[in-house]
Amino acid sequence: MPRKDIYHECVKIALEKDGWEVTNDPLQVIVDETTLYIDLGIEPVYFAEKDSELIAVEIKSFRLQSSITSMYEALGKFCIYKTALRLSESSYKLFLAVPESVYETFFQRRLIQEVIKEYKVNYLVYDIQTTEITKWIRH
Amino acid sequence: MPRKDIYHECVKIALEKDGWEVTNDPLQVIVDETTLYIDLGIEPVYFAEKDSELIAVEIKSFRLQSSITSMYEALGKFCIYKTALRLSESSYKLFLAVPESVYETFFQRRLIQEVIKEYKVNYLVYDIQTTEITKWIRH
Repeated sequence: MPRKDIYHECVKIALEKDGWEVTNDPLQVIVDETTLYIDLGIEPVYFAEKDSELIAVEIKSFRLQSSITSMYEALGKFCIYKTALRLSESSYKLFLAVPESVYETFFQRRLIQEVIKEYKVNYLVYDIQTTEITKWIRH
Repeated sequence: MPRKDIYHECVKIALEKDGWEVTNDPLQVIVDETTLYIDLGIEPVYFAEKDSELIAVEIKSFRLQSSITSMYEALGKFCIYKTALRLSESSYKLFLAVPESVYETFFQRRLIQEVIKEYKVNYLVYDIQTTEITKWIRH
Protein backbone atom coordinates (compact mmCIF):
# COMPACT_ATOMS: atom_id res chain seq x y z
CA MET A 1 0.00 0.00 0.00
CA PRO A 2 1.24 3.50 -0.78
CA ARG A 3 2.64 5.86 1.85
CA LYS A 4 0.02 8.14 3.42
CA ASP A 5 0.01 11.84 2.65
CA ILE A 6 1.18 14.07 5.55
CA TYR A 7 -2.30 15.60 5.83
CA HIS A 8 -4.08 12.23 5.84
CA GLU A 9 -5.19 12.44 9.49
CA CYS A 10 -6.07 16.13 9.21
CA VAL A 11 -8.44 15.43 6.28
CA LYS A 12 -10.00 12.45 8.07
CA ILE A 13 -10.80 14.60 11.11
CA ALA A 14 -12.13 17.41 8.90
CA LEU A 15 -14.43 15.00 7.04
CA GLU A 16 -15.74 13.55 10.31
CA LYS A 17 -16.49 17.08 11.56
CA ASP A 18 -18.28 17.66 8.22
CA GLY A 19 -20.67 14.76 8.90
CA TRP A 20 -18.93 11.89 7.13
CA GLU A 21 -17.93 8.47 8.39
CA VAL A 22 -14.65 7.04 7.13
CA THR A 23 -15.52 3.47 6.13
CA ASN A 24 -12.38 2.60 4.13
CA ASP A 25 -8.82 3.71 4.86
CA PRO A 26 -7.70 3.05 2.16
CA LEU A 27 -10.42 2.14 -0.36
CA GLN A 28 -9.22 -0.80 -2.45
CA VAL A 29 -10.23 -0.97 -6.14
CA ILE A 30 -9.39 -4.02 -8.25
CA VAL A 31 -9.44 -4.21 -12.05
CA ASP A 32 -8.19 -7.61 -13.20
CA GLU A 33 -4.49 -7.81 -12.17
CA THR A 34 -4.28 -4.18 -11.04
CA THR A 35 -5.03 -3.24 -7.43
CA LEU A 36 -5.31 0.45 -6.57
CA TYR A 37 -5.65 2.13 -3.19
CA ILE A 38 -7.59 5.39 -2.99
CA ASP A 39 -6.87 7.19 0.30
CA LEU A 40 -10.37 7.14 1.82
CA GLY A 41 -13.86 5.78 1.30
CA ILE A 42 -16.52 7.80 3.13
CA GLU A 43 -20.28 7.89 3.55
CA PRO A 44 -22.62 10.35 5.28
CA VAL A 45 -23.23 9.61 8.99
CA TYR A 46 -26.91 10.54 8.68
CA PHE A 47 -28.36 9.42 5.38
CA ALA A 48 -31.49 11.49 5.89
CA GLU A 49 -29.55 14.72 6.29
CA LYS A 50 -27.20 14.43 3.31
CA ASP A 51 -27.24 12.85 -0.09
CA SER A 52 -26.66 9.17 0.44
CA GLU A 53 -23.72 9.04 -1.93
CA LEU A 54 -20.48 7.20 -1.38
CA ILE A 55 -17.35 9.25 -1.87
CA ALA A 56 -13.75 8.26 -2.54
CA VAL A 57 -11.17 10.85 -1.50
CA GLU A 58 -7.56 11.12 -2.72
CA ILE A 59 -5.61 13.43 -0.41
CA LYS A 60 -3.00 15.78 -1.83
CA SER A 61 -0.71 18.07 0.20
CA PHE A 62 0.99 19.62 -2.87
CA ARG A 63 4.18 19.84 -0.80
CA LEU A 64 6.33 17.71 -3.14
CA GLN A 65 8.69 19.76 -5.30
CA SER A 66 6.66 22.30 -7.32
CA SER A 67 2.87 22.58 -7.38
CA ILE A 68 2.78 21.65 -11.08
CA THR A 69 4.79 18.46 -10.38
CA SER A 70 2.31 17.56 -7.63
CA MET A 71 -0.54 18.29 -10.05
CA TYR A 72 0.80 15.84 -12.67
CA GLU A 73 0.55 13.02 -10.14
CA ALA A 74 -2.75 14.25 -8.67
CA LEU A 75 -4.46 14.50 -12.07
CA GLY A 76 -2.99 11.21 -13.28
CA LYS A 77 -4.31 9.46 -10.17
CA PHE A 78 -7.71 11.15 -10.47
CA CYS A 79 -8.12 10.05 -14.11
CA ILE A 80 -6.90 6.47 -13.57
CA TYR A 81 -8.93 6.01 -10.37
CA LYS A 82 -12.05 7.32 -12.12
CA THR A 83 -11.62 4.81 -14.94
CA ALA A 84 -10.92 2.02 -12.41
CA LEU A 85 -14.06 2.86 -10.38
CA ARG A 86 -16.13 2.74 -13.59
CA LEU A 87 -14.63 -0.58 -14.72
CA SER A 88 -15.18 -2.16 -11.30
CA GLU A 89 -18.79 -0.88 -11.33
CA SER A 90 -18.22 0.96 -8.08
CA SER A 91 -20.74 3.60 -6.97
CA TYR A 92 -18.06 5.76 -5.33
CA LYS A 93 -17.77 9.31 -6.66
CA LEU A 94 -14.15 10.51 -6.67
CA PHE A 95 -12.81 13.76 -5.17
CA LEU A 96 -9.31 15.18 -4.75
CA ALA A 97 -8.64 16.82 -1.37
CA VAL A 98 -6.68 20.04 -1.83
CA PRO A 99 -5.28 22.38 0.89
CA GLU A 100 -6.84 25.86 1.15
CA SER A 101 -3.48 27.59 0.44
CA VAL A 102 -3.13 25.68 -2.86
CA TYR A 103 -6.77 26.35 -3.79
CA GLU A 104 -6.30 30.10 -3.24
CA THR A 105 -3.13 30.38 -5.33
CA PHE A 106 -2.12 27.61 -7.72
CA PHE A 107 -5.71 26.46 -8.41
CA GLN A 108 -6.66 29.97 -9.59
CA ARG A 109 -4.25 29.81 -12.54
CA ARG A 110 -5.96 29.71 -15.93
CA LEU A 111 -4.19 26.49 -16.94
CA ILE A 112 -5.29 24.67 -13.78
CA GLN A 113 -8.87 25.97 -14.02
CA GLU A 114 -9.04 24.73 -17.63
CA VAL A 115 -7.59 21.32 -16.68
CA ILE A 116 -10.14 20.95 -13.87
CA LYS A 117 -12.97 21.77 -16.27
CA GLU A 118 -11.67 19.59 -19.12
CA TYR A 119 -11.12 16.48 -16.98
CA LYS A 120 -14.13 17.15 -14.70
CA VAL A 121 -12.05 17.05 -11.52
CA ASN A 122 -14.23 17.06 -8.39
CA TYR A 123 -12.39 18.38 -5.37
CA LEU A 124 -12.83 19.42 -1.78
CA VAL A 125 -10.78 22.08 -0.03
CA TYR A 126 -9.43 21.53 3.52
CA ASP A 127 -8.03 24.05 5.98
CA ILE A 128 -5.08 22.63 7.93
CA GLN A 129 -5.34 25.36 10.61
CA THR A 130 -8.98 24.79 11.55
CA THR A 131 -9.12 21.12 10.41
CA GLU A 132 -12.26 21.85 8.42
CA ILE A 133 -13.61 21.23 4.93
CA THR A 134 -14.25 24.67 3.43
CA LYS A 135 -15.51 23.80 -0.07
CA TRP A 136 -16.90 20.96 -2.18
CA ILE A 137 -16.57 21.53 -5.90
CA ARG A 138 -18.29 19.13 -8.30
CA HIS A 139 -18.05 18.87 -12.08
CA MET B 1 14.03 22.86 -16.60
CA PRO B 2 13.20 19.32 -15.50
CA ARG B 3 15.73 16.49 -15.41
CA LYS B 4 15.92 14.49 -18.64
CA ASP B 5 14.64 10.95 -18.76
CA ILE B 6 17.38 8.29 -18.95
CA TYR B 7 16.21 7.28 -22.45
CA HIS B 8 16.13 10.85 -23.74
CA GLU B 9 19.08 10.44 -26.13
CA CYS B 10 17.94 6.98 -27.24
CA VAL B 11 14.50 8.34 -28.28
CA LYS B 12 16.09 11.32 -30.06
CA ILE B 13 18.30 9.01 -32.13
CA ALA B 14 15.36 6.68 -32.86
CA LEU B 15 13.22 9.62 -34.05
CA GLU B 16 16.01 10.90 -36.31
CA LYS B 17 16.36 7.40 -37.82
CA ASP B 18 12.56 7.46 -38.33
CA GLY B 19 12.82 10.62 -40.48
CA TRP B 20 12.21 13.37 -37.94
CA GLU B 21 14.25 16.42 -37.09
CA VAL B 22 14.44 17.45 -33.44
CA THR B 23 13.77 21.20 -33.51
CA ASN B 24 13.14 21.80 -29.78
CA ASP B 25 14.87 20.07 -26.86
CA PRO B 26 12.87 20.83 -24.79
CA LEU B 27 9.73 22.42 -26.27
CA GLN B 28 8.65 25.34 -24.08
CA VAL B 29 4.91 26.04 -23.66
CA ILE B 30 3.72 29.14 -21.79
CA VAL B 31 0.21 29.72 -20.44
CA ASP B 32 0.10 33.00 -18.52
CA GLU B 33 2.35 32.54 -15.46
CA THR B 34 2.92 28.80 -16.05
CA THR B 35 5.87 27.61 -18.16
CA LEU B 36 6.02 23.94 -19.11
CA TYR B 37 8.77 21.99 -20.85
CA ILE B 38 7.77 19.06 -23.05
CA ASP B 39 10.79 16.84 -23.77
CA LEU B 40 11.01 17.25 -27.56
CA GLY B 41 9.50 19.18 -30.45
CA ILE B 42 9.99 17.42 -33.81
CA GLU B 43 9.05 17.88 -37.45
CA PRO B 44 9.47 15.64 -40.52
CA VAL B 45 12.81 16.06 -42.34
CA TYR B 46 11.11 15.73 -45.73
CA PHE B 47 7.70 17.39 -45.74
CA ALA B 48 6.82 15.77 -49.06
CA GLU B 49 7.31 12.25 -47.69
CA LYS B 50 5.42 12.54 -44.45
CA ASP B 51 2.49 14.51 -43.11
CA SER B 52 3.78 17.95 -42.35
CA GLU B 53 2.62 17.86 -38.77
CA LEU B 54 4.53 19.12 -35.77
CA ILE B 55 4.83 16.66 -32.90
CA ALA B 56 5.63 17.14 -29.22
CA VAL B 57 7.08 14.08 -27.47
CA GLU B 58 7.15 13.41 -23.73
CA ILE B 59 9.61 10.58 -23.00
CA LYS B 60 8.85 8.01 -20.32
CA SER B 61 11.14 5.19 -19.19
CA PHE B 62 8.66 3.74 -16.65
CA ARG B 63 11.64 2.83 -14.46
CA LEU B 64 10.55 4.82 -11.42
CA GLN B 65 9.04 2.67 -8.66
CA SER B 66 6.10 0.70 -10.08
CA SER B 67 4.67 1.03 -13.59
CA ILE B 68 1.36 2.34 -12.23
CA THR B 69 3.20 5.09 -10.28
CA SER B 70 5.03 6.06 -13.48
CA MET B 71 1.69 6.04 -15.32
CA TYR B 72 0.11 8.52 -12.87
CA GLU B 73 2.79 11.06 -13.72
CA ALA B 74 2.82 10.20 -17.44
CA LEU B 75 -0.96 10.57 -17.81
CA GLY B 76 -1.07 13.72 -15.67
CA LYS B 77 1.64 15.31 -17.84
CA PHE B 78 -0.08 14.21 -21.04
CA CYS B 79 -3.43 15.73 -19.99
CA ILE B 80 -1.95 19.01 -18.68
CA TYR B 81 0.39 19.43 -21.67
CA LYS B 82 -2.51 18.81 -24.06
CA THR B 83 -4.60 21.52 -22.37
CA ALA B 84 -1.57 23.88 -22.35
CA LEU B 85 -0.92 23.32 -26.09
CA ARG B 86 -4.58 24.09 -26.82
CA LEU B 87 -4.60 27.25 -24.67
CA SER B 88 -1.39 28.53 -26.26
CA GLU B 89 -2.86 27.84 -29.73
CA SER B 90 0.06 25.59 -30.58
CA SER B 91 -0.18 23.27 -33.59
CA TYR B 92 1.92 20.55 -31.93
CA LYS B 93 0.25 17.16 -31.55
CA LEU B 94 1.30 15.43 -28.32
CA PHE B 95 2.66 11.87 -27.97
CA LEU B 96 4.05 9.88 -25.03
CA ALA B 97 7.16 7.82 -25.82
CA VAL B 98 6.91 4.39 -24.18
CA PRO B 99 9.53 1.59 -24.11
CA GLU B 100 8.71 -1.61 -26.02
CA SER B 101 8.95 -3.75 -22.85
CA VAL B 102 6.32 -1.58 -21.11
CA TYR B 103 4.09 -1.58 -24.20
CA GLU B 104 4.17 -5.39 -24.36
CA THR B 105 3.29 -5.94 -20.70
CA PHE B 106 1.86 -3.11 -18.61
CA PHE B 107 0.16 -1.36 -21.56
CA GLN B 108 -1.79 -4.55 -22.37
CA ARG B 109 -3.67 -4.46 -19.04
CA ARG B 110 -7.38 -3.72 -19.39
CA LEU B 111 -7.22 -0.72 -17.06
CA ILE B 112 -4.38 0.90 -19.03
CA GLN B 113 -6.04 0.18 -22.39
CA GLU B 114 -9.24 1.83 -21.11
CA VAL B 115 -7.35 4.85 -19.74
CA ILE B 116 -5.56 5.32 -23.10
CA LYS B 117 -8.90 5.19 -24.92
CA GLU B 118 -10.76 7.42 -22.46
CA TYR B 119 -8.11 10.18 -22.40
CA LYS B 120 -7.13 9.75 -26.08
CA VAL B 121 -3.46 9.19 -25.30
CA ASN B 122 -1.31 9.20 -28.47
CA TYR B 123 1.92 7.30 -28.00
CA LEU B 124 4.92 5.95 -29.83
CA VAL B 125 6.84 2.84 -28.83
CA TYR B 126 10.66 2.78 -28.83
CA ASP B 127 13.04 -0.16 -28.70
CA ILE B 128 16.10 0.57 -26.54
CA GLN B 129 18.06 -2.37 -28.02
CA THR B 130 17.76 -1.34 -31.69
CA THR B 131 17.22 2.42 -31.01
CA GLU B 132 14.17 2.40 -33.27
CA ILE B 133 10.59 3.58 -33.17
CA THR B 134 8.44 0.47 -33.58
CA LYS B 135 4.90 1.88 -33.39
CA TRP B 136 2.92 5.11 -33.62
CA ILE B 137 -0.51 4.90 -31.99
CA ARG B 138 -2.97 7.78 -32.46
CA HIS B 139 -6.33 8.42 -30.84
